[in-house]
Amino acid sequence: MYTLTQIEGGVCAAEGFYANGVHIGLKKDNAKDVAFIYADTPCINATVFTTNKMTAAPIRHFRQKGSFEGNFVLINSKNANAMTGPDGICDIEEVLGALCLAFPQIQHPVMSSTGVIGVRLPKAKIIEGALTFDLSVRDAVAASEAIMTTDTFAKRIAFEVTLENGHSFRIGAMAKGAGMINPAMATMLCFITTDALVEKTVLQELLNECVHTTFNAASVDGDTSTNDTVLVMANGKSGAFEASAFKEALEAMMLFLAREMVRDGEGATKLVTYKVTTALNDDEAEIAAKALSNSLLVKTALFGEDPNWGRIASTVGASGVECDEATLSIWFDEVCVYRKGELLFDSTLEPLAAAVMQKSQFTIHCDLGMGEGSFTAYGCDLGHEYVKINADYRT
Amino acid sequence: MYTLTQIEGGVCAAEGFYANGVHIGLKKDNAKDVAFIYADTPCINATVFTTNKMTAAPIRHFRQKGSFEGNFVLINSKNANAMTGPDGICDIEEVLGALCLAFPQIQHPVMSSTGVIGVRLPKAKIIEGALTFDLSVRDAVAASEAIMTTDTFAKRIAFEVTLENGHSFRIGAMAKGAGMINPAMATMLCFITTDALVEKTVLQELLNECVHTTFNAASVDGDTSTNDTVLVMANGKSGAFEASAFKEALEAMMLFLAREMVRDGEGATKLVTYKVTTALNDDEAEIAAKALSNSLLVKTALFGEDPNWGRIASTVGASGVECDEATLSIWFDEVCVYRKGELLFDSTLEPLAAAVMQKSQFTIHCDLGMGEGSFTAYGCDLGHEYVKINADYRT
Repeated sequence: MYTLTQIEGGVCAAEGFYANGVHIGLKKDNAKDVAFIYADTPCINATVFTTNKMTAAPIRHFRQKGSFEGNFVLINSKNANAMTGPDGICDIEEVLGALCLAFPQIQHPVMSSTGVIGVRLPKAKIIEGALTFDLSVRDAVAASEAIMTTDTFAKRIAFEVTLENGHSFRIGAMAKGAGMINPAMATMLCFITTDALVEKTVLQELLNECVHTTFNAASVDGDTSTNDTVLVMANGKSGAFEASAFKEALEAMMLFLAREMVRDGEGATKLVTYKVTTALNDDEAEIAAKALSNSLLVKTALFGEDPNWGRIASTVGASGVECDEATLSIWFDEVCVYRKGELLFDSTLEPLAAAVMQKSQFTIHCDLGMGEGSFTAYGCDLGHEYVKINADYRT
Repeated sequence: MYTLTQIEGGVCAAEGFYANGVHIGLKKDNAKDVAFIYADTPCINATVFTTNKMTAAPIRHFRQKGSFEGNFVLINSKNANAMTGPDGICDIEEVLGALCLAFPQIQHPVMSSTGVIGVRLPKAKIIEGALTFDLSVRDAVAASEAIMTTDTFAKRIAFEVTLENGHSFRIGAMAKGAGMINPAMATMLCFITTDALVEKTVLQELLNECVHTTFNAASVDGDTSTNDTVLVMANGKSGAFEASAFKEALEAMMLFLAREMVRDGEGATKLVTYKVTTALNDDEAEIAAKALSNSLLVKTALFGEDPNWGRIASTVGASGVECDEATLSIWFDEVCVYRKGELLFDSTLEPLAAAVMQKSQFTIHCDLGMGEGSFTAYGCDLGHEYVKINADYRT
């Protein structure tokens, strides 16, 4: 037995972690644009990166270094340092080299970036700003704000986990992401810190398991970024660990952040849970659930609050999974709108279904009647704001 | 040698084919909503249907009948007769039965439908309307208008093909489609008539070949309909045939209609050709080209006329094909915006790229530098009108 308590503090909740976010001139209007996470002792880490083959420079730099056993992450928004070739890596080395010179306590730093693709990093500006960092600050709020791009709110969470023997550890996180988000891979940026005493291989394994059902189950627009990164840093300071407790906390935190990211999807007004059950197997359930969360026709019907269950059925059929209209059933929350070949819509039922669609969060459940597979994905609607935001993103 | 001449007449251009479109009350404002194609002699045919597993009743009915050697197709818009189970097939049989009774010259008729999913066919209304048909009318314009749903213009074309020996045949077509259009399968509705003397197996083979590079290369929104159908009817009346001439005419016609469909994409303001060259192989080129035509971020950048080539690169990278930023080059028409790792945008080049984006039709060309594969796909932008049309489609 163990207990999970949600606490304040984000990435600074765990012992020995410091963070801050400042404005160095990449964003307009004095908005914070560079953040750091610093640990006062060495950390072990686990990472998941994008599967996009046009991998951004920070990720290639990270991989070149092999295992990251350092204690410092520098994060900038507004510039992705992607499609910048070998120059992109040199820019990172120059920035981090300057940081190491200025702050002798920084060991093996890495960098993470998000923003526009195909523009060289403004490294002089970043170095100038980074040299003003105060590594003793613990401002998880400022750090989570500095990594935002089209996000409309900052995303962070922390838990204290108390084990049966009375020992406890903490785990905290922050994430950014509102667009270029697709369930077929790792995800946007997410940074997690913990003082749990976890082994590196166990940490990586637990991270991989949790990514599948959380960030990889979330979609805003079906587009996979060049920079997606999840990084967990663990310094072991609490001396406490219990795998199932740690996994529950990690998964709950990542699911919270994944859902927050979708809720903040560019222009989104609704967070929809797509539950697919009795698919032939779990893989097919996943394919169908993700097809639903990515269908433009489903997303625009959500925006229009139109209980157009025909588009749900058609999307499942088009996804290529085993299915049949004679065994399919569809619910909007508790309202069954189609049951195994039976057309249920009438003047009583349609208003009930329409009322569900008007909620800001609800579940669309498809039961395929084919086997025992299930998967749950998370998506949002697509409205005018998405078009507006993305039609002139660079300007 | 042979010559192709574009002619008027659509599906009535070939000898022995009759068609019309009338208003029977499915659409508002006296808009035409039911069409027929009638051949005064038996025809051989070839078909391609949707790969959506929630196949609509008309397609299941068609398949149940096995080979269609009839001379009549009834087409209605406004109701897809999809997700209607065995009842949907009975409704078709009842409608077609009534038609056969009234018109003894109709042999083995079939039906095709497009519109809302999950509502029973208004069969009494359709029968009543169909009984007023005059099978001696040749109004290809009215027929092509009656099959429109969200289409803003009717789509039809015809060719006369003159062979070296002086013999000639004609081939005509009409199509509908503006949404729920995805390159992974057959396509929307398309009806083609010809008096060429073609064998059934040859006809089916040529149709399959042409679908791949035309309708299957076109995308509006990445959603695959339950009702997609391409039907070719050939009555042999011209006595003339030459496979390569026929294929060239068929492919040119289908490409024209596929591009018209994308140009008329729901809310679309631009028709963009995505040319992918030097991919590892043709399959990978196709995957990359279709990923581009379906990317929401690319589509919204098009709408915003933003030469955001980073999204092009990122989408190719995310598609999973072999690629590398060091070998990739990208052109907007003749303007090279990225060349093998070199960032080219400066104050001279960016306005040139932006000027291309302002055109209503242009080509985005990605050269991957990986092999000898190539493919060309067709897509459109996504703007506010798409959201508007699809947010309240049923109302």
